[in-house]
Amino acid sequence: MTDQITLYYRNALADVVGTQQGLATDELDALAPAIQQITADMDQQRAKGQLPYRDLPYQQEMAQQVHNLAAKLKGRFDNLLVLGIGGSALGNIALQTALNDPLYNLTPHRTSPRLFVMDNVDPVQFRSLLHFLQGQWDRTLVNVISKSGQTAETASQFLIIKDLVTQQLGPERLKDHLIATTDPASGTLRRIADDLNLTTLQVPPGVGGRFSVLSHVGLFSAALCGIDIDQLLAGARDMDQRLKNPNLRQNPAALYAAIQFAFYKKHKNLSVMMPYSYQLKDLCDWYRQLWAESLGKQTDLDGNTVNTGPTPIKALGATDQHSQVQLYREGPHDKIFTFLQVDQFQHDVPLPSHVDAPELTYLADHSLAHLLNSEKRATEYALLQSQRPCLTVSFPQVSPYTVGQFIYLFETATSYMGALLNINTYDQPAVELGKIATFALMNHPDHQKLLHNIQQSAQPDPNFLI
Amino acid sequence: MTDQITLYYRNALADVVGTQQGLATDELDALAPAIQQITADMDQQRAKGQLPYRDLPYQQEMAQQVHNLAAKLKGRFDNLLVLGIGGSALGNIALQTALNDPLYNLTPHRTSPRLFVMDNVDPVQFRSLLHFLQGQWDRTLVNVISKSGQTAETASQFLIIKDLVTQQLGPERLKDHLIATTDPASGTLRRIADDLNLTTLQVPPGVGGRFSVLSHVGLFSAALCGIDIDQLLAGARDMDQRLKNPNLRQNPAALYAAIQFAFYKKHKNLSVMMPYSYQLKDLCDWYRQLWAESLGKQTDLDGNTVNTGPTPIKALGATDQHSQVQLYREGPHDKIFTFLQVDQFQHDVPLPSHVDAPELTYLADHSLAHLLNSEKRATEYALLQSQRPCLTVSFPQVSPYTVGQFIYLFETATSYMGALLNINTYDQPAVELGKIATFALMNHPDHQKLLHNIQQSAQPDPNFLI
Repeated sequence: MTDQITLYYRNALADVVGTQQGLATDELDALAPAIQQITADMDQQRAKGQLPYRDLPYQQEMAQQVHNLAAKLKGRFDNLLVLGIGGSALGNIALQTALNDPLYNLTPHRTSPRLFVMDNVDPVQFRSLLHFLQGQWDRTLVNVISKSGQTAETASQFLIIKDLVTQQLGPERLKDHLIATTDPASGTLRRIADDLNLTTLQVPPGVGGRFSVLSHVGLFSAALCGIDIDQLLAGARDMDQRLKNPNLRQNPAALYAAIQFAFYKKHKNLSVMMPYSYQLKDLCDWYRQLWAESLGKQTDLDGNTVNTGPTPIKALGATDQHSQVQLYREGPHDKIFTFLQVDQFQHDVPLPSHVDAPELTYLADHSLAHLLNSEKRATEYALLQSQRPCLTVSFPQVSPYTVGQFIYLFETATSYMGALLNINTYDQPAVELGKIATFALMNHPDHQKLLHNIQQSAQPDPNFLI
Repeated sequence: MTDQITLYYRNALADVVGTQQGLATDELDALAPAIQQITADMDQQRAKGQLPYRDLPYQQEMAQQVHNLAAKLKGRFDNLLVLGIGGSALGNIALQTALNDPLYNLTPHRTSPRLFVMDNVDPVQFRSLLHFLQGQWDRTLVNVISKSGQTAETASQFLIIKDLVTQQLGPERLKDHLIATTDPASGTLRRIADDLNLTTLQVPPGVGGRFSVLSHVGLFSAALCGIDIDQLLAGARDMDQRLKNPNLRQNPAALYAAIQFAFYKKHKNLSVMMPYSYQLKDLCDWYRQLWAESLGKQTDLDGNTVNTGPTPIKALGATDQHSQVQLYREGPHDKIFTFLQVDQFQHDVPLPSHVDAPELTYLADHSLAHLLNSEKRATEYALLQSQRPCLTVSFPQVSPYTVGQFIYLFETATSYMGALLNINTYDQPAVELGKIATFALMNHPDHQKLLHNIQQSAQPDPNFLI
């Protein structure tokens, strides 16, 4: 296999950052038996169909459905509007930023539609989009993504857009402009979609939103915007081969998780991911959800109250050197760093050969790629001088194939980390209260009692307002 | 004074979130004498001209220069390209997102130029921009911002653009398309600008980048893009009046800092800012630099090694409810939350009156603004149920006047927090090593020894690469 992404971990070890802040190799290797056990457990779960996200890259039929639909729709639309939030949006955004032009929506040379992923209900932002799309609805395709259809944000967006398309184009054309990605069998959106005779795609059963990017959820917008989803899935499959190895030091997902776990136990509760690439920046937001929602848990699998979970943080290189690195070097020893590095950028921009100012002649004949990679090395060097442990994930290049590897690597690392923390990686019980409290505050008839409680408990007190 | 932003802090107190996680009012009031002293010290520093950022909103001449220049240039350009990084970019981005249309660059109805703030040296991103600007250079204005002109990222961008404009338009037209914002008297960029006869604006002496948004640094791009900078400065001045009060409970900057300080001492080392407004999201990145770079310090003013500094985190409501709130509610008790809330949005989008699906009828006749504000209340309620302390900063509306207040409030709160932590708020010594290590890796002749050290210490070891 060529074009493999790699993990370099020596700069997290005690040899480099000292015994106080670094990880001794025997501390790391002490986790090898646990990793072996977890690997065997996951194999078993997978064989029983209990870990369906691990098998998504092998679902040829799923990919074929996306290809067929994208081929049918190609050329018919100037705008693709995705309505979704959380796991129904972050993957779509990440793929687009990683694999299409940074100014994709603005460029006049696109051969595929503009992409708008509307993952919030801010009225100013939403109205701005409606304003932009005015008069363009006949050239706009909408993909609404929600497993249940009851997510308040997505449901609201959908109701507004459905009304608008009906008004603008007539009810008989709804089915040509709306595609619903939802549960294959049941739920609110499934029923609405069937009633309206919409084309539907599937949120795969048993796969949580944050693990769903390699399904219809993430693949359709990517394919329609010209991204090679076959290579994405090939990258994920090839990574899967590497992750079958039960040996801690030979399995990058296991190793990444073990290192993160060991540092978390050593009171480094912040995990910073720092990509030195514009293209990789939104993959960090995707990872941020994956890591936080999977690992932030109150109780462990034995029922103990643990209030556990590292906090994932995104920082963009080189930009955030001028914002966060002062804190990262001199602040508390509460962080571990994961750099994302690109060996070969898709394009480069040369610096001029002739530079007048003597203070700047050192830049002559270099290039932005060389500068950006030098900044990464320099920042890592500076962090190591301050005994801050660093990991590096290297991309030979940013391509569908390497991005597919990265996604699968981090999904699987999350499973390992959850198992090491002895928590349920796949639920999100704490999100529920906020959801029903929103229902209550929107006067949902089923939640009047909660509304009363909220109003009681959150009585504003002017003595504490200035 | 109407239209004041407010701080609500009862939900951070022990009364609401319990004595274990909350702040007792006497713990808070114990900081009152320190606040009184710090207020007096700051007054004195200010009188001696040692705190020049506090006086920026009163510099009428500075604002007038921006007005004159913007008036002269109005209508001549389709694109404004800002070259800067860190404090020379974050304020510009924040003002633009807060006070112009979310799809400003894409809309065909603009009356002012598109704005591109290029705050990185990613070659793929930079090349994409150059590609977009191809053939448009005669309608493009470039504002390069750097106090010294030696910041590697900005200098590189500038060298590339200067060459390109020279090629495309001829050397005699450089001065019509490049504006330099730099030190008024000395430095590399000052000298280059004078040699090329460029129009210049000033980075005010004694004001660090992260405190400079209300100077030429942030005001010029705002003014050229149609933002009312007079109202911005008026907001800052009116906030200044409120911040003269030495009484802890009556001075929002002092109170915000005191609460953050007290929680930091209680081992809550993460400070999450969560705006429920698209427009306010980039102000959080601006705050993130301000807070991190000012407060992340190794030694205190007495020379003790303290490795101090809370880590500021940005989370966007409602989006990040579906990404981070699981962790925020159930993870470690290591966070304090600051919500930003908008009472009256500039626009609203109504939900339909008639909703077919019975599960969604509760949404009928509401609006996105009501939904978003309900989500904020619901999330806060859920966090409080999990004993997580919450603050709320409310904007009556998002306007230049309220944004000016916010900026000045948080700049001053940073000064209070630095004083409480007994550190130097205004330096950033740890950034230096990364900068010169970059020079070294770019083969700068002055840093050959460092290059040797880096190469020695960072010898990659294939045994730790998988």
